[in-house]
This record gives sequence, C-alpha cells and structure tokens, in this order.
Amino acid sequence: MSIKVAEYLFTRLRQLGVGSIFGVPGDYNLHLLDFVQPSDLAWVGNCNELNAAYAADGYARVNGLSALITTFGVGELSAINGITGAYTEKAPIIHIVGTPARGLQETRSLIHHTLADGEYGRFADMVSHVTVAQVDLKDPRLVPDQIDHALRQALIHSRPVYLQVPVDMVDIFIDASNLTSPISVPSAPATGHEPSILQRILERIYAAQRPLILIDGESRFMGIVGHIDTLVKTSTWPTWTTVFGKSIVNEQYPNVYGIYSGSLGDPLWKDYFDSADLILNLGPHNTSTNSSNFTVLPDPGVTITFSSNYIQIGSDIYRDIVPSNFLSQLLQTLEINRISKINGPAKSVIKASSLNPCDLITQKHFYRTVNPLFRDGDVILTETGTAAHGGRNFVLPQNARIFGPVTWLSIGYMLPATLGAALAQREQTTSKDTRAFLFIGDGSLQMSVQEISTIIRENLNVIIFVINNNGYTIERAIHGRKQAYNDIASWTHNLALRFFGASESHAEQNSFVARTWGELDAILRDERVRNGSGVRMIEVFMGKEDVQGALLQLMEQQVANE
Amino acid sequence: MSIKVAEYLFTRLRQLGVGSIFGVPGDYNLHLLDFVQPSDLAWVGNCNELNAAYAADGYARVNGLSALITTFGVGELSAINGITGAYTEKAPIIHIVGTPARGLQETRSLIHHTLADGEYGRFADMVSHVTVAQVDLKDPRLVPDQIDHALRQALIHSRPVYLQVPVDMVDIFIDASNLTSPISVPSAPATGHEPSILQRILERIYAAQRPLILIDGESRFMGIVGHIDTLVKTSTWPTWTTVFGKSIVNEQYPNVYGIYSGSLGDPLWKDYFDSADLILNLGPHNTSTNSSNFTVLPDPGVTITFSSNYIQIGSDIYRDIVPSNFLSQLLQTLEINRISKINGPAKSVIKASSLNPCDLITQKHFYRTVNPLFRDGDVILTETGTAAHGGRNFVLPQNARIFGPVTWLSIGYMLPATLGAALAQREQTTSKDTRAFLFIGDGSLQMSVQEISTIIRENLNVIIFVINNNGYTIERAIHGRKQAYNDIASWTHNLALRFFGASESHAEQNSFVARTWGELDAILRDERVRNGSGVRMIEVFMGKEDVQGALLQLMEQQVANE
Repeated sequence: MSIKVAEYLFTRLRQLGVGSIFGVPGDYNLHLLDFVQPSDLAWVGNCNELNAAYAADGYARVNGLSALITTFGVGELSAINGITGAYTEKAPIIHIVGTPARGLQETRSLIHHTLADGEYGRFADMVSHVTVAQVDLKDPRLVPDQIDHALRQALIHSRPVYLQVPVDMVDIFIDASNLTSPISVPSAPATGHEPSILQRILERIYAAQRPLILIDGESRFMGIVGHIDTLVKTSTWPTWTTVFGKSIVNEQYPNVYGIYSGSLGDPLWKDYFDSADLILNLGPHNTSTNSSNFTVLPDPGVTITFSSNYIQIGSDIYRDIVPSNFLSQLLQTLEINRISKINGPAKSVIKASSLNPCDLITQKHFYRTVNPLFRDGDVILTETGTAAHGGRNFVLPQNARIFGPVTWLSIGYMLPATLGAALAQREQTTSKDTRAFLFIGDGSLQMSVQEISTIIRENLNVIIFVINNNGYTIERAIHGRKQAYNDIASWTHNLALRFFGASESHAEQNSFVARTWGELDAILRDERVRNGSGVRMIEVFMGKEDVQGALLQLMEQQVANE
Repeated sequence: MSIKVAEYLFTRLRQLGVGSIFGVPGDYNLHLLDFVQPSDLAWVGNCNELNAAYAADGYARVNGLSALITTFGVGELSAINGITGAYTEKAPIIHIVGTPARGLQETRSLIHHTLADGEYGRFADMVSHVTVAQVDLKDPRLVPDQIDHALRQALIHSRPVYLQVPVDMVDIFIDASNLTSPISVPSAPATGHEPSILQRILERIYAAQRPLILIDGESRFMGIVGHIDTLVKTSTWPTWTTVFGKSIVNEQYPNVYGIYSGSLGDPLWKDYFDSADLILNLGPHNTSTNSSNFTVLPDPGVTITFSSNYIQIGSDIYRDIVPSNFLSQLLQTLEINRISKINGPAKSVIKASSLNPCDLITQKHFYRTVNPLFRDGDVILTETGTAAHGGRNFVLPQNARIFGPVTWLSIGYMLPATLGAALAQREQTTSKDTRAFLFIGDGSLQMSVQEISTIIRENLNVIIFVINNNGYTIERAIHGRKQAYNDIASWTHNLALRFFGASESHAEQNSFVARTWGELDAILRDERVRNGSGVRMIEVFMGKEDVQGALLQLMEQQVANE
C-alpha cells in the first residue's frame, strides 16, 4: 500500500498523540499545509515563527510531543531560539520545514529565502547543534524510515528534531507499510547488575534516619512520574523539588514542602538538608538557575541519584539501567515497615498578615494573595523575572502544572507557551473549563505580545497577570538599577484584549487594573476572573525596584557597592 | 595610552559614523551597556531581538553601518534571522554579543542561557554561516586588532560581523594606539589591463544605437552611486532599475523609467529591452525576486556588467579592477558628443481615471493615489506582499529612498526596518521634518507589530499604511486561495497607537480607517497626514484576493487549475 509523504508524516503524528500543529504559512510549506486538516490535525497559525516554536514547546511539555511547520530560511531561523530552548529543557518538537523543490536545490538556483549563494544546506547545519536528528526527505524510497528515525529520536531524547520537506515531495507516493507498527522507543535489556544495586539501595533506605527525596524535572522524561508519586506517598519522607521538578509531585501531600532554596529559604529546611543521611535525587538537571546557582546540589556522599542514563550511589556510577524498570522493582521489593517514620521540619507557614486595602501592591505578598485562585488541573506559567521568583512559592492544588524558568530563560517564551500548554490541556480532557494562568512582567510581555491574539482566536481560558514595573526589573537587580536601558516604552495594557481581537464587550468586561491591595482583592473576587471564560487580563502595578528572594540579595549587593 | 575594551569598541563605532545602537538588555551585556551613552552613542532598546536586528539592518542601509547588542544564546539566536537577511542583502551590522565571564566558559559551567552541555562555541558556529567575521574578545593583547579586523570585514563586504564580549572583558584595559588611524578599506592597485578594457567599453558605447542602462542594488556598496548619477544625467540614455536598484538614481530625470518588469510591464519597454544593442548593467544582484523570476536578466551578448568584483564584456571577465576607480576614468574619458542621442520608448502614463468616492479601495489604483504624498528626502518602505508589488510603480521624488523585497523576504522585516531607516535619516540631516512611510499588510504587521512602540518612543515621523485584507494575500496568490491557513486573527488596528504608548490625544487624532476612495481621499488631504508629526496609522481595507502584477498572474493560474 502506498501513501503520500505528507499523509504518512501526519498519520505518524496522529499516532503519537499530536492533535494540533503550530506554525506560519510560507511559500515553501503551503502544499504541506493542505494536508493538515484532512489528516484530522488542527492548524494553529501563529503571529510569527518564534512564537510558534514557543507554543509548540509549551504543547510538547503538556502533551509529550508537538509539531511545528515553518518555511525555509526566514521561517525556520526565526524559530531557532525556541527550538534551542526546547533542546535545552527537553521538549520534543517535530520541526517540519517546507523547502524549495529538489530541482531548484540541485541547480543551486538563486531564489528568494536563500543567501543568494546557491548553498541550500546552511540552515540544516545551523540547526544540527540544537536538534537530535536532521532528515531531508528527498528520496521516496528512504522517506518512511527517515521519518520514523526522526520521530523515534525525538521520543528517545525528548528533544527537537528537524525534517526538511521539499515542496515537490509533499504528494509523492511512498510505501505505507511501516504505519502498521507504532513508533517504539527501544528498551535496554537488564544488565545483570540490577539485583546487587537494588540490594545496596534498599540497605541505604532501611538504614536512613534523616532521609529526603529531591525531585527534579528530568524525571518527567524518564517515565518515572508515577513511581515518584508512589514513593512519596508510601514513604511519607520529606520531599522537596527544584524549579524544574515543581508540580511533578502533588504538593497537597503533607510531606511535600515545595522548592528547596538553601540559604534563601527556611533555615529549618536547610538544617534538615545539611544533616540528611540519605537523599534520593530523581531526574537531576544541575544548572545554575535550577539549583540556586549550584548552592543546593545534594552532597554526593549521602545521595543516590536516578538520572536518565545512570544510577549513582556515592561515587559509583551504574549505566545502562532503565530507570523506570528499576524503580518498579525497587517499589515492589521495598518493605515499607522497615523504613523510618520521619517527621520532617515544620512547613513554612505563610503569615496571613492582613494587607491594608489602600497600600500599593508589593511582590512580597502578591503571590500568596493570588494563590487561592488556583484549582485542580490548572496550568500556571511564571515568566523569567520577578514573576518566576514569586511563583516559586505557590502551593499548587493536585494535578496542577507549573512552568518556571529552568535553564534557557528566554524572556517572551511564557506567553506563547501558555497558548501551547492550554491547548494541549484542553485536548486532553473532556472538561470545558480547563484554565491556564500566566504571570508575566511588562518587559517580557513586549517580546511576544501579539500571541495574545492567537489565544483569543483559539478561545482558550487564560488569565494573564501583567506585572507592570516599567521595565526589566530582574536586570535592575542584576546590574544597572537606575540605568535607562532597563526601562521600556509604556503601553496601555488594558487595551490589549480589544486590540488583539476580542469583542468589544468581552474586552471591556475582562480587562482589569490594580494598584492597591483593595483593587486586587476586588478583582480576585470577581466572578469573571474566578469562573469566567476566554482571555482575561489583569494589569498589576508594582515598584521598579521591588524584588524578593535571590533578586533581593542581588539588589542589596548592588546598593551596597554604590 | 590605554582604554577599556568597551570604550575602544564604541569609539570605533563613532568614528565610522554610528550614532545609535539597537538591542535588548540581558544579563551578559549589561556592563557593556553602561558604556553606550558615555561614548556619545544613543541606546535604542527594542521590544525583542529580531526586531532589533531588523532595525539595525534598516539603519545600516541608510547610514552605511549599524550596531546591535544582544545577550548570549537567547538574544543572539532571536536575532539570527535578521542577521541572515542583512548578510543576504548586504547591510553591514556590527553584532555585539555579551557573553558569560571567561572563567565560567573555561570551566564549562552549566549556567543559564547555555544548552546545559558545557559547550560555549555553538552559537558562534551557527552564526559563522551568515557573518563575514567572528571574533571572541578574550585576550587583551589581541582585542584592538580583533575589533579592527571585524569592522574592516563589515565595510569591505558590506555584511554583518559578530563580536563576542565576555562580561569580565568589558572594562579591561587595552592598547588604544590603533584609534589614531581610521579603519580603512584596502584598495587594489591597478591591474594594468584597465586602459585596454576602457577602450573596448568606449568603442561599444560610441557604437551603440539602442543602448540602455540597468541599475541594480549592489551598486550602493560599490561606491558608484555618484558615477551612476553622472552617467544617467549626461548620457540621457534610457535607464531602468531593479527592485533593489530603485531609488539609487533620481526618478525625476526624464530618461529614468522605473523598474523593468519584462512581459509584466509596458510592451514598448520590453521591445526596447529585447532589441537593445548595449546594456550597461551596474551592481547586479541576480536573484529570482529581483529579476521577475530570472526573466529580465539582460542578454549577456549585448551586456557590459560592472559587478563588485569583476567587469564582464560578453563572455570575457576581468577581475581585480576597482569599479569606482574604473568608472571615474570612464566618465572622464567619455566624449559625450560621440554617443547617440536616444529617444527611448514612451514613459508609461498612469491613467488618471477618476475614482468613484463610494467605491471600495482596490490595489490597482491605491498606489498611484497615495504617490503624490511623497516629497524630497522621504524614506518609503514596502513590505513583502501586495504592498511591495504595488510600491514597484511608485514614482519617487529626488533623494527619496525606497526599500522593497530583494531576496531574503522575511515578512515582519519592514516595520522595525522603518524604525532604523527613519532614525538614520533623522541623524543625517539637521531638518526636523524627515519622514518615513511604511506600506505593510496585516499579516506582516502581526510578525513584529510591537516595534511601533519604539517608533513612538523615539518620536519619529512615520506614516504607516496597513493594508487589511484579512491575511496573507501574497500566499493566497501563490497557493491556497481559499484555505483557512492563509487567514489571520482580526485586530482592531485603530487602537494600535494608543495601545503602544502614544498619548490619548495623539492616538485619537492620528488613527485613520479607509474603505472607500472617498474616505482615503479625505485622509490624504488631512493636514495631520500631510504635515503632521509623530506616528500616524492609516488602515486601508482591500479585498482578500485583490492582487496585481505578478501576483495576479499567479492567482489567475490557480483559478484556472481549480
């Protein structure tokens, strides 16, 4: 049986659970786009390609896989920063690029969207740094295996791959027989060392008197989220996460504390960490931002690490063990009555000091004030900057999902990622009232603001808090506290919904501004915010130099040096 | 004498005529930004890095050189599509990237804005495809020569270069002695063949009975714009341009016809071209878009080509001759009384058929209707799409400058490029009433719309015509005439000025909407449009499938195939 190239590709994407494709039309991908809707996939046309890549990243993190279509040169290069972020933080995006017809490439024709030098391989070369597979679909005999190879690599590594589809290949017939076998991720056979390692780990677990569990973000790609839930629930051991690991485990469990911040956080927590005799570290992603600048990395002497490609006990590293299989065995073997019952340190109590309704809103109390808005299943995105620093301390309901800045930290990412995450979330449930929250500073907002229009067009339920502090306050904390280069143009944010295409009545009813606690309180009680639908935007004014946590330390350092 | 690295770099930029720097602050460039204003350079903070690169490109084309500052990874990769366009169409941008401190790089630290793999060289590798020099300023002994080398390469090739400045190098002292010698572009000595080539060319010129001059865009970088003016004025020979060459020569000269479009244009012009016995082809850039898909490239048998690196007579190619020197000699030697006086074909007369004020605005008559608005010295930008196709036929006043799509054709480019071009234009004159016009479709506008706010903040005089045809009409002409993927979200364009920060009164007074000829006529007579200041926005509604010229051909082909 035979099938057209585009149909094969899109059938594979459907098989892998992709429901929508992001992107921007362009001369070299229009024929490809003809096949999107007939393949039972939704097309989400974005305002530009960087935003499309960011959206695809957000969708991949919630859905497990996403797809992006851009055009040769101009389109794909606009997307490359988004692809790089997805590579760094492991969001598998299938990036499909429509390219010029094979004949034009072979004759090195000086057509538009090239560098006018006859070289057609430059963009694939550039992107090879930030994708785990690159295939160019030019030979019908090879196409099925090329596509399958690329998709398998994306799944194995949980990272982006790159497929070039010449415009004259789109409707060429290829062999369809692969399609009857689903794409599978190969599994390694047991190494034979598992029983002895298991024994070693169990002994450590049974002996531990001050144990803790530290959950990091790579757990998600290791297929061990369910195992973690069981481990945390049954052991009842004190559990912390990193930024990347936050929301992998249910924060409503009494033994889950939230993000561990070392000396910036609760001193009792730090005492417990520093005196721990066993740290079970799952899915580590040891970058500066994700580890309070490397200060909270667990002591290797007391740590057992479960990484995607090794298990480490002290200084011994065991490779080629499948983490999910191993953890299944561990949980089956573990005799729960042999482990210590631990009362971890007290949970930090957020002081419910009452706020004067006439006082201006401050970073310090803002996040705990909005926290009660969240409910089960919400997706919450906190953009790099003061929003993310505040969002670290959110206490999440069960099944909520939070996005925080992990390593790439490209400002502008979170708004289009909200589009992608909210869409994936809606596709995964039958419920109509899925919701997403975005917390974003006014500087980050300017980067990718137009994607609000796609959120409106897709009719998603999204509540956007814009923190208006007149510029890049995170940068003010780092350097240039009073410098003009950290200021930005002042926008009339409460016109955003109407400008970007919401109906006049919706925009008027759902655009809010708050400067004081009283104003914020009224908004948070408002039925349109609590139980409304569509996009709602709440502009919240805060001070230019108002920062908390690690940023406050930096700001104070700077003031001291002045 | 010694000087800090940042001071050296910025002093060099000042010496080369750069007045403003574009970019976005980021953790790794803040220290560098501290030196911008003290170096007597203006800082233009853009909304995002792609827009900043586009703006730098527009500035470079008017000013001759520009500078862009971004941060490592996230910033520079967002800009890379803009850099690639500048590389393709020869706009020299000095792209300065603030990078992590040397110690972090040497220890392969897993810090934010990296791929978390310890590799710090990936982005430089990627950008090496689209820049003519890459330098990493890590050794104080080498820095002055590294900077000078990069700047010289930018000037020689008229293309972008890439400089990495680690944050701990910014205020390191280096030797300042180079600064007393200006950066110079080396000149090749005469080859010795010049007199015989000159003789050959003069004979052809004296013999020509149906000669013409064809001016293309690379002339600008060859330093021969003045020579072209003399040649066109004194010979009075029929003269055409390409899209890239338009506005290099004064279109008010009686012998200058405008853009040559072959079979799509005036048949009399085509007859003249086809029967020409001599074509002087200056600064060729032979790409598809710039040559009506290669259909208007001059016949080599009758052509003498002056390119940046060779002169070609028939099939004979002479290299290593400096075009500006050679053309100076040619013009000095040329005996004007020995050349044929030519009456070229009649100029196409735009029929001034009167338009019914109640009729809807159409592409066919729109451009000639707005054309009388232009005056000496205006800069006019026509975005890829219907706007550019219409703008081909503008008749420009003297000293006007037009931007049209040449080869890279990245939609979204022209709006930030308007910022850059208008700023460069204002810096170059003492007059306060410099102006720029932007013609842009609603689809392109969505790509980079936020940069309107920077134009407002910089208080530039810019008139924006937004052609609202509900989507990507150029794509509709190419493929997918009725497909939903060519539609876009509908925006409330007349709120743009207010949303992006213009004062309420300015926004209200300067936002216009026209659907009919009568409405357009009233707007074009309006004193705020004719002689106002600041940003004015005119939304003009046109049909979704309303196209002209080459696009009309494509659309008709598609209809015929349906």
